[in-house]
Amino acid sequence: MVAATREAPVPAALAASRSRVDATLEALFARDATTPPRLEAAMRHGLLGGGKRLRPLLVYLAGQALGADERDLDAPAAAIELIHAYSLVHDDLPAMDDDDLRRGQPTVHKAFDEATAILAGDALQTLAFEVLAASAHPRLGSLIMTLAHAAGRDGMVAGQVLDLEAVGGHPDVDALARMHAHKTGALIAAAVRLGALVAVDESDPRLDALGRYARAIGLAFQIHDDVLDVTGDTATLGKTSGADAARAKPTYPGLLGLEGARNKAQALVDEAVTALAPLGDAATPLAELARYMIERDH
Amino acid sequence: MVAATREAPVPAALAASRSRVDATLEALFARDATTPPRLEAAMRHGLLGGGKRLRPLLVYLAGQALGADERDLDAPAAAIELIHAYSLVHDDLPAMDDDDLRRGQPTVHKAFDEATAILAGDALQTLAFEVLAASAHPRLGSLIMTLAHAAGRDGMVAGQVLDLEAVGGHPDVDALARMHAHKTGALIAAAVRLGALVAVDESDPRLDALGRYARAIGLAFQIHDDVLDVTGDTATLGKTSGADAARAKPTYPGLLGLEGARNKAQALVDEAVTALAPLGDAATPLAELARYMIERDH
Repeated sequence: MVAATREAPVPAALAASRSRVDATLEALFARDATTPPRLEAAMRHGLLGGGKRLRPLLVYLAGQALGADERDLDAPAAAIELIHAYSLVHDDLPAMDDDDLRRGQPTVHKAFDEATAILAGDALQTLAFEVLAASAHPRLGSLIMTLAHAAGRDGMVAGQVLDLEAVGGHPDVDALARMHAHKTGALIAAAVRLGALVAVDESDPRLDALGRYARAIGLAFQIHDDVLDVTGDTATLGKTSGADAARAKPTYPGLLGLEGARNKAQALVDEAVTALAPLGDAATPLAELARYMIERDH
Repeated sequence: MVAATREAPVPAALAASRSRVDATLEALFARDATTPPRLEAAMRHGLLGGGKRLRPLLVYLAGQALGADERDLDAPAAAIELIHAYSLVHDDLPAMDDDDLRRGQPTVHKAFDEATAILAGDALQTLAFEVLAASAHPRLGSLIMTLAHAAGRDGMVAGQVLDLEAVGGHPDVDALARMHAHKTGALIAAAVRLGALVAVDESDPRLDALGRYARAIGLAFQIHDDVLDVTGDTATLGKTSGADAARAKPTYPGLLGLEGARNKAQALVDEAVTALAPLGDAATPLAELARYMIERDH
């Protein structure tokens, strides 16, 4: 499905990737389960309630750019989305960002309760590694290491801690970039790397090119998110607009102005597209996705 | 170290296993880290502040009973303790059991704060899979699947949900056993299976014998925990004694009486020892550990 959209615009590729990964994720619940119904419902709420599925699309596009079979990309695509979903469930908790709304729906702790949200997030993380392990890929060790390193204490969780520490503070642009490189950048880079590692081993020089691409689009994505928080409306975003300002969160528009933030994001997209040169035409969909990153309205 | 204690009593084997796994766990923090210091401190607090290290000992004893090299057991021993530690950090949170004391120390959310405790728990779980993946064991897929299945929605997390649902309710002995089989039993069984899978593949019939052993000692362990909650004191336990009764938690002594609970635990230990017969003399340390399970005072 994703392959067929290579000529189509990015929204079509996103939609195809979303259908594919949603089917994979839905299938994780189609079984004789001993999971308590309330836990399963909370996991489904946190995982299947919409979402752009950007990280799975990156897994598919990066893998296919290096010749991977689409079917071999389903497990890492699902795994990275499970990690992303768990992080959102926990980030929204009262002790963290205390958000009531996510993807236009009540957050898990609002729809259920706080204990259930903590446990559902925990179980979604575990399931990510279970799904990846079940793929029995010959480079399973590298795949697990990539996902764990990006998700854990030196990656996404580190970013969340840096984010909490930054609230009400006055970080400069470098500190903000460092926070985002961990909080969202690490997982975006892991998505690209997971896709690539399904196709090639760690010695392939194209992994470096894809790493540069991923770091650039990861930051561009976050800057554009900050911009949308200023310029978007709650209905389109599916989350509360103006939330960053209300919470005194440091943002790129706050530090660089709206125009400065937009220019920075554009420069990063140019950098990402340039990085793809060694991959030739096979990387065209990745380049299109980079451009789309700063054009989307939610 | 563990091998040398085979003739020694269980407390000596526990101490040796504790030294060995503590060294492995400590080494996880000896590196140039980008982990935020507060996160690392909270992870260390949750992981390295004592603990019996019973699950790592089970990994070592089960693996060695089937001929595994002790060094190959370090990664799964550390991984299972990381999962156990993460679960304690989250279980103690205000939205869950709301405990102030653990292993004689303030719980992580008391020593730090709630957001840091949630994130430290999250990162400890991730690290478990990272450590296991780094072992590059030829049966890595089976090892990860074993750990994830025991830790997740059909195992430990399911047990925690059943436990929360049971508070203030009136479950019978079967419902209580089902809760414990998930909450603590799954991870104890996984410890034994991980050790065994380091030595042999999944078709080895001794895995079934070890599975029966593990299920029996897992429940015996929990019944004895309930007994200690009634008969122990806070200083020896390292956690608040009488906490179950104060919280109206269903317990074995509550359902069977103190003597009934002790008899049930003894019957399970006998069952565990009988299950070990196919392993011969190599399983003597596992049999000793089963007996110790219901003799310990904390």
